[in-house]
Amino acid sequence: MIRIGVIGAIGYAGRELIRLLGIHPEAEVVAAVELEGGRPLADVLPAFAKTTGVVLETFDPDKLARECDVVFMALPGTQSMGLVPPLRSAGIRVIDMGPDFRLKDTAAFHQYYGAEHAAPELLPESVYGLAPYYRDRIRDAQLVAVPGCYVMSVLFPLRPIVDGLSTDVPVVVDAISGVSGAGRKLLEAFHFPEMNENLLAYKLGVHQHTPEIEQELGNKVMVQFSPHVGPYTRGILSTITARPSGDLDPASSYACYDDEPYVRVLGEGKLAQVGAVRGSNFCEFGWVRDQRTGNLIIVSAIDNLLGGTAGMAVQCLNIMFRLDERTGLNLAGMAP
Amino acid sequence: MIRIGVIGAIGYAGRELIRLLGIHPEAEVVAAVELEGGRPLADVLPAFAKTTGVVLETFDPDKLARECDVVFMALPGTQSMGLVPPLRSAGIRVIDMGPDFRLKDTAAFHQYYGAEHAAPELLPESVYGLAPYYRDRIRDAQLVAVPGCYVMSVLFPLRPIVDGLSTDVPVVVDAISGVSGAGRKLLEAFHFPEMNENLLAYKLGVHQHTPEIEQELGNKVMVQFSPHVGPYTRGILSTITARPSGDLDPASSYACYDDEPYVRVLGEGKLAQVGAVRGSNFCEFGWVRDQRTGNLIIVSAIDNLLGGTAGMAVQCLNIMFRLDERTGLNLAGMAP
Amino acid sequence: MIRIGVIGAIGYAGRELIRLLGIHPEAEVVAAVELEGGRPLADVLPAFAKTTGVVLETFDPDKLARECDVVFMALPGTQSMGLVPPLRSAGIRVIDMGPDFRLKDTAAFHQYYGAEHAAPELLPESVYGLAPYYRDRIRDAQLVAVPGCYVMSVLFPLRPIVDGLSTDVPVVVDAISGVSGAGRKLLEAFHFPEMNENLLAYKLGVHQHTPEIEQELGNKVMVQFSPHVGPYTRGILSTITARPSGDLDPASSYACYDDEPYVRVLGEGKLAQVGAVRGSNFCEFGWVRDQRTGNLIIVSAIDNLLGGTAGMAVQCLNIMFRLDERTGLNLAGMAP
Amino acid sequence: MIRIGVIGAIGYAGRELIRLLGIHPEAEVVAAVELEGGRPLADVLPAFAKTTGVVLETFDPDKLARECDVVFMALPGTQSMGLVPPLRSAGIRVIDMGPDFRLKDTAAFHQYYGAEHAAPELLPESVYGLAPYYRDRIRDAQLVAVPGCYVMSVLFPLRPIVDGLSTDVPVVVDAISGVSGAGRKLLEAFHFPEMNENLLAYKLGVHQHTPEIEQELGNKVMVQFSPHVGPYTRGILSTITARPSGDLDPASSYACYDDEPYVRVLGEGKLAQVGAVRGSNFCEFGWVRDQRTGNLIIVSAIDNLLGGTAGMAVQCLNIMFRLDERTGLNLAGMAP
Repeated sequence: MIRIGVIGAIGYAGRELIRLLGIHPEAEVVAAVELEGGRPLADVLPAFAKTTGVVLETFDPDKLARECDVVFMALPGTQSMGLVPPLRSAGIRVIDMGPDFRLKDTAAFHQYYGAEHAAPELLPESVYGLAPYYRDRIRDAQLVAVPGCYVMSVLFPLRPIVDGLSTDVPVVVDAISGVSGAGRKLLEAFHFPEMNENLLAYKLGVHQHTPEIEQELGNKVMVQFSPHVGPYTRGILSTITARPSGDLDPASSYACYDDEPYVRVLGEGKLAQVGAVRGSNFCEFGWVRDQRTGNLIIVSAIDNLLGGTAGMAVQCLNIMFRLDERTGLNLAGMAP
Repeated sequence: MIRIGVIGAIGYAGRELIRLLGIHPEAEVVAAVELEGGRPLADVLPAFAKTTGVVLETFDPDKLARECDVVFMALPGTQSMGLVPPLRSAGIRVIDMGPDFRLKDTAAFHQYYGAEHAAPELLPESVYGLAPYYRDRIRDAQLVAVPGCYVMSVLFPLRPIVDGLSTDVPVVVDAISGVSGAGRKLLEAFHFPEMNENLLAYKLGVHQHTPEIEQELGNKVMVQFSPHVGPYTRGILSTITARPSGDLDPASSYACYDDEPYVRVLGEGKLAQVGAVRGSNFCEFGWVRDQRTGNLIIVSAIDNLLGGTAGMAVQCLNIMFRLDERTGLNLAGMAP
Repeated sequence: MIRIGVIGAIGYAGRELIRLLGIHPEAEVVAAVELEGGRPLADVLPAFAKTTGVVLETFDPDKLARECDVVFMALPGTQSMGLVPPLRSAGIRVIDMGPDFRLKDTAAFHQYYGAEHAAPELLPESVYGLAPYYRDRIRDAQLVAVPGCYVMSVLFPLRPIVDGLSTDVPVVVDAISGVSGAGRKLLEAFHFPEMNENLLAYKLGVHQHTPEIEQELGNKVMVQFSPHVGPYTRGILSTITARPSGDLDPASSYACYDDEPYVRVLGEGKLAQVGAVRGSNFCEFGWVRDQRTGNLIIVSAIDNLLGGTAGMAVQCLNIMFRLDERTGLNLAGMAP
Repeated sequence: MIRIGVIGAIGYAGRELIRLLGIHPEAEVVAAVELEGGRPLADVLPAFAKTTGVVLETFDPDKLARECDVVFMALPGTQSMGLVPPLRSAGIRVIDMGPDFRLKDTAAFHQYYGAEHAAPELLPESVYGLAPYYRDRIRDAQLVAVPGCYVMSVLFPLRPIVDGLSTDVPVVVDAISGVSGAGRKLLEAFHFPEMNENLLAYKLGVHQHTPEIEQELGNKVMVQFSPHVGPYTRGILSTITARPSGDLDPASSYACYDDEPYVRVLGEGKLAQVGAVRGSNFCEFGWVRDQRTGNLIIVSAIDNLLGGTAGMAVQCLNIMFRLDERTGLNLAGMAP
């Protein structure tokens, strides 16, 4: 059994990871770290009662190094960059589900996250945890930075075709996330009576996933990223409007995903929906070519907490420990 | 009292109209037409019990002419164009909330609605019922075509600035509607367990509101219209990404709405949300100018059934009968 | 125009009242009181923009007395009892939508609200604002205590039949409220991702509406009241299980409501639903007699914010000012 | 690998079973039966793409006998009783998730399901699949009848204490189910705009789970069962009001569940919620003793599709094939 530590166990990403590892046959959560250590996880989160006996503890890198084979970080932006160096010094492999080790450009990090990077020396060794593209480097990585949820919903469809897109105008990405993407922090906007039956946009043009998307598209195109929040809990639907620069045959470009276990290419005229990926590790997408306008419109869907965070993290774990990538992940979408 | 007839009384638009007229001090629903006549409306729709005694009847233009001062049509596309000519021949003023008399171009009508127009001779006299722009013509109109719900959410913000936009690329409109926009017809996609917690796109590039938007923008720009359905009942949020051709000052362009009773200009950096307009006749919008990309991104919100349909229809009624435009409409958004 | 003051303008009950008064032809909100005075209401609550220019002010009974014909209180329990005496001393008529002046028994008040009553001397003059039963006294009342939302959903069906019920066992009331019933205070339980798709019970056996229900049933039966919260915004559904002591003919008992404008008796075998009353002032109910068990089961529905609070308050206002009781209230249920 | 056949693969219970078996390490779905055979399951249900290659086939008991070790039935009431006899004749073990083989009393079956039982000769061998109580008989059962979803939410808390309850009055069970409990059949009541923000009761006193609950309580008490549907997809919350006949100590009675893997006894003063069991095989419950009324009120929660149907079916499978009962089921509640 791979011995797992989770730092940030009671946030939404941490919960989802621990839930998912409950059905992983080769991994076991042996340490769960939170600021408020001391209580059994199941006392804090009743949904875990009778599934795990793990007791919350405070951060101790040496103890984690003794007890764990790998540690997952499930913390908000800027909170893991201070904790990863001692973990790495103690020799622990780290899979960071937060954003701190994704951007290679520390200036962009500073601009979008509002803080100086505390561990820039670790960025060169950090491997971007997008399995289909970095599989070979993930295998022996000591530090993996799992991509952002919105980012994955955009990269899967855009990366194979980016060279065929016009660079004259930005690619427009309008994405709608379920409210779980905003985490467990109480805000008036997400009080049930305020958010239910509501829909809103936020951080237009300044969302921190923008530079991450552009970095992983090789900075070949500019992205106009407009995130939204909708009245549901899980999932992201991204609608991508791009202008091909010449003849572009998406279907053949997407053949690269034929053998990817968790990317579903629906095809032309078929559109993704959140309900088909909820509760699963899949990203799915389809597209329409509008002859009248000359645009290509792609719609992709992902579960922000699972395929968009914890599921991809487990897929990286499987790669790092030479397991079948599907191990513990073979859940179809929970529909209904 | 203005005597009102409603044709299509039990569809969602008809219900909303009758509900709204319940608080209109100068109008009364005296005739409600449906295919299945004979039963009191409140027997078919229990929400109306003890609010109206109107009994459903079948279509009889002469009877309607005797009993009504004006007739509202609340029918799906292609179903009103056959009924309006006899109503007009009988001398009745008509406010059509459906799409049949909105497009001036019968070829576009045929292309997007899949049928030859049955009454093209009435198109010249049909007045487009967008109060802020056609107020003077609505006053004495005999036939008013209330704009489409998506269309209004786009026209209010775009029409004042369309001359300042680049014509090189289409304006991108990603809009998300509540499920009521799809009407009361049972479809598997809108079965509660399928649609709840789901989100999907549809009719990309081919939605029938596309030519209507472009017509009312003077065919000066092309619109890439991508409609979506989200897991809530009422409201539309439209995110509009446009490229200004030069210096464009949205705030001054939008001063035209200062005295409009039901258009709320939120201003730069402020974003509309569905929750603020639900249950009201308002369309509200705000915007962001992205210096990095050169784009202008506008977010607008409207209640698809009220401000986007029945409310604008009542506003037209008020204009036609020389009432204060706000009569019976002064509802703030129902939040929560 | 009746000049209205609202104390507690930005809570959910206060918002709903101000929204509702927006369509009242004989009343106008001239004063809105909140702790944080100084800003226009529409700045704090964007849904009110362009519907009212009222500016929030702090509590000043003399100023209110000069400017208002009547003041509505929309405050949580124990917060109005200190403010009503100075208002009454200043000669202002008060309609309290909170609980402080409903219970005649100050010991029960202390037990259920956790505080000594601060103005017991006003309890004798306080009139219970349940229009169908206290209409005559409401007319000239100086202080009206609008019933609780759950309470109305139970009293309308139970009060006419209470004398026919067995007193051997408590009447069982299982009621489910939308989340707006819990108000605007941020709590983890009502954070959207926690409450969405969730359902829970609370305050079993100790909810403060229990003694109010029993008081208004003449303390003839004991009530086992079990409130719940469900994943929706507005509305209460109450399922009432009672044991008739002998032959009981509900239909004839309920004939008392034939002319009540906002009570809908659906009849035997017909069950109320939240969707039929949402956005309206109605309470509706129907019932089943189970021959096998000997029980009578009644299901009633009300909109907790409207029919259950602000709507009944406006109905009281209409009575107090000799208006038609339906004035400003003739909204059918908003369905969909 | 245990070779599994599923009859009724595209209904909601069948889908959930196949989804769940996707993470079962010892079982594989090799046959999926539907009326409309011939298409890959993933073509009909896109959520299954890339998780299973199974192709829908029509019902052929001999083929199923050759290919499967066990067959699950996931059909509406009265539809499996005709298919089980040929399956049993062909020697196949059957786990029926539908109601046809639960009631021992064929008269009650006829009364509540409206049809003569077609295979009464199989009732004696049918084992009621409630693992904690019938574990020993399930082990070698040839035909298992998985309990109803509502039923399990009631039996887990009531069965250990039934002997301590008064028999003078019925136990009152008010239960609220998510809409998935009504299946995939399109009905106006469950059209999204009708059901969203709605709540309703149905089949009061005549629901078919009533005799099943009473049978499994040894017909010692009468149950007043009032089912409801709420605006969410999954889960049941049951509120049970019972009158103890004397001193009853629920905590000690419930010690029987200490080692049950999927029953969570929350304790006195703690109340179950749907959000804690959604997506899991757990039933959880807690209770309150109301000294004032003398009643015991229990609140229990279960996921109607998982713990209430497919999960319990898999638990039975595990027992029948001598696996650890937790195999493939160790999912914590999906919260959020």
